[in-house]
Amino acid sequence: MRVDLNCDLGESFGRYTLGLDDEVIKYVSSANVACGMHASDPQVMAKTVRLAKAAGAAVGAHPGFADLQGFGRRNMDLSPMELHDLVLYQLGALDGFCRAEGIKLSHVKPHGAMYNMAVKNAAMAGAICRAARDFDPALSILAPDGSELQRAAAECGLSFICEVFADRAYQPDGTLVPRKMPGAMIDDEEEAISRVVRMVKTGLVRAISGEDIKVKAESICVHGDSSKALVFVQKIRVALQDAGIEIKRGGREDD
Amino acid sequence: MRVDLNCDLGESFGRYTLGLDDEVIKYVSSANVACGMHASDPQVMAKTVRLAKAAGAAVGAHPGFADLQGFGRRNMDLSPMELHDLVLYQLGALDGFCRAEGIKLSHVKPHGAMYNMAVKNAAMAGAICRAARDFDPALSILAPDGSELQRAAAECGLSFICEVFADRAYQPDGTLVPRKMPGAMIDDEEEAISRVVRMVKTGLVRAISGEDIKVKAESICVHGDSSKALVFVQKIRVALQDAGIEIKRGGREDD
Amino acid sequence: MRVDLNCDLGESFGRYTLGLDDEVIKYVSSANVACGMHASDPQVMAKTVRLAKAAGAAVGAHPGFADLQGFGRRNMDLSPMELHDLVLYQLGALDGFCRAEGIKLSHVKPHGAMYNMAVKNAAMAGAICRAARDFDPALSILAPDGSELQRAAAECGLSFICEVFADRAYQPDGTLVPRKMPGAMIDDEEEAISRVVRMVKTGLVRAISGEDIKVKAESICVHGDSSKALVFVQKIRVALQDAGIEIKRGGREDD
Amino acid sequence: MRVDLNCDLGESFGRYTLGLDDEVIKYVSSANVACGMHASDPQVMAKTVRLAKAAGAAVGAHPGFADLQGFGRRNMDLSPMELHDLVLYQLGALDGFCRAEGIKLSHVKPHGAMYNMAVKNAAMAGAICRAARDFDPALSILAPDGSELQRAAAECGLSFICEVFADRAYQPDGTLVPRKMPGAMIDDEEEAISRVVRMVKTGLVRAISGEDIKVKAESICVHGDSSKALVFVQKIRVALQDAGIEIKRGGREDD
Repeated sequence: MRVDLNCDLGESFGRYTLGLDDEVIKYVSSANVACGMHASDPQVMAKTVRLAKAAGAAVGAHPGFADLQGFGRRNMDLSPMELHDLVLYQLGALDGFCRAEGIKLSHVKPHGAMYNMAVKNAAMAGAICRAARDFDPALSILAPDGSELQRAAAECGLSFICEVFADRAYQPDGTLVPRKMPGAMIDDEEEAISRVVRMVKTGLVRAISGEDIKVKAESICVHGDSSKALVFVQKIRVALQDAGIEIKRGGREDD
Repeated sequence: MRVDLNCDLGESFGRYTLGLDDEVIKYVSSANVACGMHASDPQVMAKTVRLAKAAGAAVGAHPGFADLQGFGRRNMDLSPMELHDLVLYQLGALDGFCRAEGIKLSHVKPHGAMYNMAVKNAAMAGAICRAARDFDPALSILAPDGSELQRAAAECGLSFICEVFADRAYQPDGTLVPRKMPGAMIDDEEEAISRVVRMVKTGLVRAISGEDIKVKAESICVHGDSSKALVFVQKIRVALQDAGIEIKRGGREDD
Repeated sequence: MRVDLNCDLGESFGRYTLGLDDEVIKYVSSANVACGMHASDPQVMAKTVRLAKAAGAAVGAHPGFADLQGFGRRNMDLSPMELHDLVLYQLGALDGFCRAEGIKLSHVKPHGAMYNMAVKNAAMAGAICRAARDFDPALSILAPDGSELQRAAAECGLSFICEVFADRAYQPDGTLVPRKMPGAMIDDEEEAISRVVRMVKTGLVRAISGEDIKVKAESICVHGDSSKALVFVQKIRVALQDAGIEIKRGGREDD
Repeated sequence: MRVDLNCDLGESFGRYTLGLDDEVIKYVSSANVACGMHASDPQVMAKTVRLAKAAGAAVGAHPGFADLQGFGRRNMDLSPMELHDLVLYQLGALDGFCRAEGIKLSHVKPHGAMYNMAVKNAAMAGAICRAARDFDPALSILAPDGSELQRAAAECGLSFICEVFADRAYQPDGTLVPRKMPGAMIDDEEEAISRVVRMVKTGLVRAISGEDIKVKAESICVHGDSSKALVFVQKIRVALQDAGIEIKRGGREDD
């Protein structure tokens, strides 16, 4: 029994530092690395790829909308072709740093608004997955089970890694409870951790409605943007290992 | 006897169109494609790479400073590491579109102020060439004979293509007469064309001082930003062919 | 009887030129000047304000989304506060150039997607109008009769100028026929011009359904982005004058 | 006897936070507010102007190069006209938020590379001061005594405020010891504070060469980017007040 721990990394920019990358990288198996549109810049990317390589974590692309001020969190209306080309640009840019380090891109996980939109929007999901396939058919897509990204990945012949969220509540249909709604966040650390272990071991999670639902937990999304988040990651890691679950990258092995 | 004709392409941006790319691509053997910093965007890059592929022209990267408003023509003080990472980012980004089209990047020619500075500045030339080597040691560098870029390419083990300018006057030391000085431009088309043919056939050009100097003309830089420029390219091409000179890409063959 | 002719101006950027500003400015009474977000830069703004001043045209702000690549034509989800501050920033920036020329900002007309969204969205219309009022309560808002921008302007105590479109078909409810639908554009120049004159003289226009509807035509939106558009503006101007209608700025007089 | 304490503020951007603005504003009399080019965005500007107003601090513009990634710290070659228009744009943009709050811009202090270049470069200093004068002849320029900015301010009829640095060593000619040289920073807090009090009271400072030189200390530049910097500002403030020196804004009073 194994699971991947994935975390967004490399979201600093120029003079601005974000996240405890140097620390959190020690505990995760996959890094979703920002590509210079919603965050990051060439120097941050170079440093982040080196960091992930040194830690043995898989390097995935974390493409976002070209909205640095909004950190890629504001919905934008792009045509599928615009989105395809925007993602392809970012995959290539990040891969430049991977090539310089002699490693290969492992997976693609869209960021922020692009992720949230593509989870539900087939045209957007298709554009993102086609960009990934056009770049490298060996890339995996990292997103929730049942999402449009999963369907699009299948159509493109890409492998898919189902991710779950440690700190979020689920609706009966398997989608996340929107952040604005009460109960959206699992604030109790112990509860969150036991939910994570249960999801991985049994494929079940208690929905906000009280019933158990099925989830596919191949990768767990964690955060490294505060010392509290970091401690939480450490605890999840220990709890998973104590439960006999191996922490292992979800995407392809680096050759 | 052969020579390469190279031209900057893909410098449109969003709503803004620049250059007669669809036309000039028919007459050149190498396209220097802008990478989204001084000009271009993901959609322009996608289109330009397809255009060059269809025309059978070599696709090279034309990286520039991140100064869209100044079109990469304003000097910027970057550290060698900043420059290295900025160039690597752009090589990767452009390569994303090449991979999608199944072709390979052929060469690197810096743009505008980055080109002018690196020609004379060893630290900058080194940073650019190391970025090219780190990305792909099979890339060529396209720049003038005797430049710091030539020295740096040699140090990095990169092949080098010497370019000359059809419309510019030369100083006795082989460098260009600065644009601000009188006589910098060769305005007479017939004179420019006969100079070009002579440079390729004999390796000589008449300097502004009146003496003949040696030049290495493996590639000729031409422009496609006006209908006049386009006609000039057509005439150069015919004149070269009439002189028995083959027009052929300077960088690697596409496999 | 009088009417304003308004036109978007100053949408060039850096190396990129857009529109025949030097020509069209001769025929319009109000210039909607881009503010550096969807288009333009400080030098284009300086030049455009001087051009409008020399021609005696009113200078209005034409704020847009911060999406240069998309030319401000892609919908973006901004909170009302984000939108308020984004518009306020642009009003101030443009006003810097007006102050340097000793003239005053006359009106505000949002650009592209910001315009289209705010016409129908009360929260966005409110944010834009509050930004205008916070900057200068003597500013007018330029937008269609019956729009949310009209309601918001009234709530903010701002004067409002109703604009109509010379080249667009109307639906029975007074809104424009969407561009994608057949018949959206009035391609016949003569028909367009006679519609314009009728709108100004009688307040009526033939809707696409065939019936006459009421419109309030205080300002006519024209374009200057091609020589064809320019000829059309000239013809409209002559036709209006021949009909005894004075062409006069809609916003405040410059003191 | 009085002196101004000035501090750069509002250099956060989007998701990225920089500086302890909420704290340091309590101790300074003048805020140099970033204008969206080297740092900041419309929302940060709105918040910063409100913060400064509430604290009773003078609001000055802190314009920088359009180089967000480099935080305006990399030299750029702009023509005087480009620089003039770039500064004018930023003055206007910041003034939009001042108008919304009913306050007036007090002074202009260029940021980073623009400051360092203009201190020594007459053409750049002239361009910046003309932009300030064109915007509002009542603005003051804040920069070192003896700088080109001082000369240019005088030529433009602008008032000038001489600033000194609490944490930097001086050369015998009154200029700062460059950061790269040994001894450039005054690391000992007590020494720095006694130097500051002496500069204000006597107009003298011990140069790095060991001799006393004259300095004009009308404003003291302090920092608020760390808790250590903040404590230092508090100590300087107390020491000045203990020495009978009033802390008072250097630029115009707000009407």
